[in-house]
Amino acid sequence: MVLLRSYVSGGWHTAPGGGVPLHDAATGEEVARVSSEGVDFAAALGYGRTVGGPALRELTFHQRAALLKALASHLREHREELYALSAKTGATLGDSKFDIDGGIGVLFSYGSKGKRELPNDTVYVDGAVEPLSKGGTFVAQHIATPLRGVAVQINAFNFPVWGPLEKFAPAFLAGVPSLVKPASQTAYLTARLVELIIESGILPEGSLQFVAGSVGDLLDHLTAQDLVSFTGSASTAQKLRAHPAIVRNAVRFNAEADSLNCSILAPDARPSTPEFDLFVKQLVTEMTVKAGQKCTAIRRAFVPAELLDDVAEAASARLAKVTVGNPATEGVRMGALASLEQREEVRRSLKALLDAGSVVFGDPEQVDVVDGDAAKGAFMSPVLLKADPERSEPHEVEAFGPVSTLLPYTSVEQVIELAARGGGSLVGSIVTGDPAFARTVVLGVAPYHGRLLVLDSEDAKESTGHGSPMPQLVHGGPGRAGGGEEMGGIRGVMHHLQRTAVQGSPTVLSTVTGQWVAGAPRTEGEHPFRKSLAELRLGDCVVAGPRTVTRADIDHFAEFTGDTFYAHTNPEAAAANPLFGGIVAHGYLVVSFAAGLFVSPEPGPVLANYGLENLRFLTPVKVDDALTVTLTAKQITPRIDQEYGEVRWDADVTNQDGDSVAKYDVLTLVSKEQP
Amino acid sequence: MVLLRSYVSGGWHTAPGGGVPLHDAATGEEVARVSSEGVDFAAALGYGRTVGGPALRELTFHQRAALLKALASHLREHREELYALSAKTGATLGDSKFDIDGGIGVLFSYGSKGKRELPNDTVYVDGAVEPLSKGGTFVAQHIATPLRGVAVQINAFNFPVWGPLEKFAPAFLAGVPSLVKPASQTAYLTARLVELIIESGILPEGSLQFVAGSVGDLLDHLTAQDLVSFTGSASTAQKLRAHPAIVRNAVRFNAEADSLNCSILAPDARPSTPEFDLFVKQLVTEMTVKAGQKCTAIRRAFVPAELLDDVAEAASARLAKVTVGNPATEGVRMGALASLEQREEVRRSLKALLDAGSVVFGDPEQVDVVDGDAAKGAFMSPVLLKADPERSEPHEVEAFGPVSTLLPYTSVEQVIELAARGGGSLVGSIVTGDPAFARTVVLGVAPYHGRLLVLDSEDAKESTGHGSPMPQLVHGGPGRAGGGEEMGGIRGVMHHLQRTAVQGSPTVLSTVTGQWVAGAPRTEGEHPFRKSLAELRLGDCVVAGPRTVTRADIDHFAEFTGDTFYAHTNPEAAAANPLFGGIVAHGYLVVSFAAGLFVSPEPGPVLANYGLENLRFLTPVKVDDALTVTLTAKQITPRIDQEYGEVRWDADVTNQDGDSVAKYDVLTLVSKEQP
Repeated sequence: MVLLRSYVSGGWHTAPGGGVPLHDAATGEEVARVSSEGVDFAAALGYGRTVGGPALRELTFHQRAALLKALASHLREHREELYALSAKTGATLGDSKFDIDGGIGVLFSYGSKGKRELPNDTVYVDGAVEPLSKGGTFVAQHIATPLRGVAVQINAFNFPVWGPLEKFAPAFLAGVPSLVKPASQTAYLTARLVELIIESGILPEGSLQFVAGSVGDLLDHLTAQDLVSFTGSASTAQKLRAHPAIVRNAVRFNAEADSLNCSILAPDARPSTPEFDLFVKQLVTEMTVKAGQKCTAIRRAFVPAELLDDVAEAASARLAKVTVGNPATEGVRMGALASLEQREEVRRSLKALLDAGSVVFGDPEQVDVVDGDAAKGAFMSPVLLKADPERSEPHEVEAFGPVSTLLPYTSVEQVIELAARGGGSLVGSIVTGDPAFARTVVLGVAPYHGRLLVLDSEDAKESTGHGSPMPQLVHGGPGRAGGGEEMGGIRGVMHHLQRTAVQGSPTVLSTVTGQWVAGAPRTEGEHPFRKSLAELRLGDCVVAGPRTVTRADIDHFAEFTGDTFYAHTNPEAAAANPLFGGIVAHGYLVVSFAAGLFVSPEPGPVLANYGLENLRFLTPVKVDDALTVTLTAKQITPRIDQEYGEVRWDADVTNQDGDSVAKYDVLTLVSKEQP
Repeated sequence: MVLLRSYVSGGWHTAPGGGVPLHDAATGEEVARVSSEGVDFAAALGYGRTVGGPALRELTFHQRAALLKALASHLREHREELYALSAKTGATLGDSKFDIDGGIGVLFSYGSKGKRELPNDTVYVDGAVEPLSKGGTFVAQHIATPLRGVAVQINAFNFPVWGPLEKFAPAFLAGVPSLVKPASQTAYLTARLVELIIESGILPEGSLQFVAGSVGDLLDHLTAQDLVSFTGSASTAQKLRAHPAIVRNAVRFNAEADSLNCSILAPDARPSTPEFDLFVKQLVTEMTVKAGQKCTAIRRAFVPAELLDDVAEAASARLAKVTVGNPATEGVRMGALASLEQREEVRRSLKALLDAGSVVFGDPEQVDVVDGDAAKGAFMSPVLLKADPERSEPHEVEAFGPVSTLLPYTSVEQVIELAARGGGSLVGSIVTGDPAFARTVVLGVAPYHGRLLVLDSEDAKESTGHGSPMPQLVHGGPGRAGGGEEMGGIRGVMHHLQRTAVQGSPTVLSTVTGQWVAGAPRTEGEHPFRKSLAELRLGDCVVAGPRTVTRADIDHFAEFTGDTFYAHTNPEAAAANPLFGGIVAHGYLVVSFAAGLFVSPEPGPVLANYGLENLRFLTPVKVDDALTVTLTAKQITPRIDQEYGEVRWDADVTNQDGDSVAKYDVLTLVSKEQP
């Protein structure tokens, strides 16, 4: 039988001993063996820090994003192979797609976000310039740079592909190497995933390491520059959080633990409404996808007391149609739990829950199995309970399988309070056709949740559902759910970066950030629109004007555009305006004249003005004011996959007194080379 | 002698016992006694959660910001009284201003930031709408809502005013009640500060509680909704971080610990350069302000090896001029350490440091004292050492007093590596006239620092200095420095809020966030420019057009504005442009025509267009394209101190095919009532 290999310190490591056997969830057959014996964990961390980190930090965010995209495309080519292996974990094809396609989707999403929302640079500039002095010679801005350690990622058994990729993608994009440690139970699937990645040669060496088996003394070697991200049980999360090396070094520790997630049916969603059906359908889906082994699954289903019987009946009818059996067999809706031990654990938890309630549907000990052996495979019936919501068990005991509990409530205040008793959840659903009810409940339970889904007839068709974390959205919740936060788009990248406030002169700040800052030197010379991206330098500028704005200009602009707003056309009414006290030029006229002043009209490297940002009209422009504009190259971003890039210009329009009348950023596309 | 009172559960509590005596740092006389005996900590936390929290959450961010400003003004009136009390902590008047004016400055800063950067609402919307579906019926956005617990703030002895206010301001602005626990040594000053605050009646009851004395069993009662912010020693930070209740509930824990901060002199900063003098002057300042009892003080002064003697000489000459003595006496530059115990601790640390080096200036055991008794007061000479930078002690042993060590280096790579050996610092300085050197060092050491100051002749005059945390900037550093982050403007507020991803239909999302989202219902009717702030509703809109853009329009606009860019004027050149392929209208023409279409010109509640944001030109406008604009009320923000407020409008300009050609936000000021 195959002994899973680790990939550490630049090579594949096979443990000297025989390893621990891993079993097919449905057949009980041995699939592989696992052992991390002989792995030198200190060396692996050192290798990540000295080989992987430097290689990653050589790349810009855009380059790393492009590699993530290439990796996603590569893995998509090998999905079938991964699906087949995934079936051994007890997963149906649908479950496998959730895991594998979901994981690949995370790579695509970070590839795309990295390109769109991060600079083509190695430094991330966080937030605006903060003025710290009256004279403007002392300013500050925050930068974010990759931690110089390793992101240790400890994953749960239930998502052997999505789990690792969800943690790896933001770390990689940040420029921090990963060391991936999957739960042993399903590590053979992660091992194959890692083989595919390493064999592809797409990633810089050292940016991904992999340990099959236990973590050994890994954590003892952590430093303040390393990170730990954990997904798994709340009790293991607690143990890791208090690990001496993590505590001593204030290691960034992020936990995502399964929680007592809720779904709330609103009183308006009575039987025969679309929302009633959506609630029931989603409940059954969440109970049966991955055989309920999702940290996001619905454990507590709150329903208005008067609708409890209706929901119980409708859900039971749906659950009765769920066929359980060999996940590889067509027509099977729900596969096996990950292992026989896992099933035992679910049954134990069920016993505790039954102290507070009773079974509505299903037999915890008995199930009809399609194409499988109920003695060898970890099969189990979905089990729906109902319970007294004032008892503690439904809010504290989690059966990590196809189990959920109906809990009646009688008022919106009560259901908000009951939802909070979960002590912190990854996700909650509110199913209602009443947006006002949704608002009340969302704002009431938000402090206890990382994600909330409001399901109604408007979004149901396109909704990705309660159980699906999205790379764009934060995943993680307070308290019981681990107190962490993963993904959330660029937020997940930021977790791997150290934010540092940099104080200095505008000149120094510009040099450090690679973005021109007001007060830093400007260079006048050849018109900067004549320069290609390769020739342009930060601070290159053009000063143009003055141009006097006459009353005739204002009148004409009003007539030509149709913008006859009284402040531009009616002297008496304009005089009464508390902000103007007389006729003022249109803001649009000011920026149009400014463009007329700063433009260099002949064909050249500047291709287009594709937008403006942060435009503020600061001083009214009165009749016969004379405008001067200064346009300064502020940020230069070549695109890695185009013959051009973006240039952001600082535009400052001043009047004859030197006061700024308008400030804004002009966004242009500029060719890398002269045409 | 006065026994300090606690303010908990809505009243002043006096401990039944006699308490522990606190002594004047300079005279040794008893100042006060302290004891938290009899405080019911569980009740105090409960009171904060059930009285303070709800009262705060009733207020909008702007209302809370206004209260912070009022509080700052109130405390400014009582500065003299606080200065006098502060002298007993060993602080000179300069030291006292640093602490007291600094603290009041934090309140002003958060008052101002809250008004400018947060909404006049109880919900903070974090980041953009995330599209999650092709059809646009399923979208998401992150909201941030106050945690429902108490922010427990445990402060250090060295900043009895700034420390508590620095933690209180962002918590209060976030809507989370504070429980302040100062270090006992100087608690009498914090106690008086809290009395002034409570007596002012400015804050909602329950938003601030105060414990004089030990924390008792406070931490045992923490829940997942509470927070702990700690400032103090690295060892206490570790103990707290591993506290069972904090670990069990994943309580948000932020630590800010004193660290081995460095200052780096660049090779270009040779004697007689302004930067050389700045380096020496700042080093001496940091050693002597607050008698070096600042967690941000410079402990490690890296200098090019060839300049070591010059620096030693110049620093010694400056240090020789520092008069030590009674902090209340005029002319005294450095007061006493906070206590005799503190001085003993510094002397112990000095012994360890001397294993790796030698004394350059000062005698740890001996000092001339002006107007004070060296036997009773905790006076001490500033002590400058020099040491071998390859030894571990200078990077690990902190003498928390007027002590610093000169360390020679020979290359930029070496000094970056040496700086990192501090294991994480709050702040570092780089003193150089060479921006390129600054960039190299900043990017090299940033992952190990929360803040970096680049000091040069350009910013020196206005610089606030190495040792001053700023409310706009993050304060805190990785590893040894505690691994936390405080302040940083609105970032410090966010630490007290739970971020929650809300998924739903555009209709629901708009209702939840109070901001209109594309896809949510629009209401056409009376022109929305005719409506006052009180009458206007989210989604109120005007659809106007079409207006055809003729070639004559484009020609005329080019001529009128002077914007004769070839893409608008030269058919052949425009045809060769890879993005346009022919003449296109100016973007400025498009937005000007759009304004002409959507404007309602007569005087009314709309006062001004003060800006535009996020303008993107999405599709080129060709000759004879017909433009339609839809303007929709997106966000309505009444100002609490004006007769008007801001309205943000969503502008969507489409062509005859229904494609968006430009999208942007129009920012206007609108009267609360009809004029």
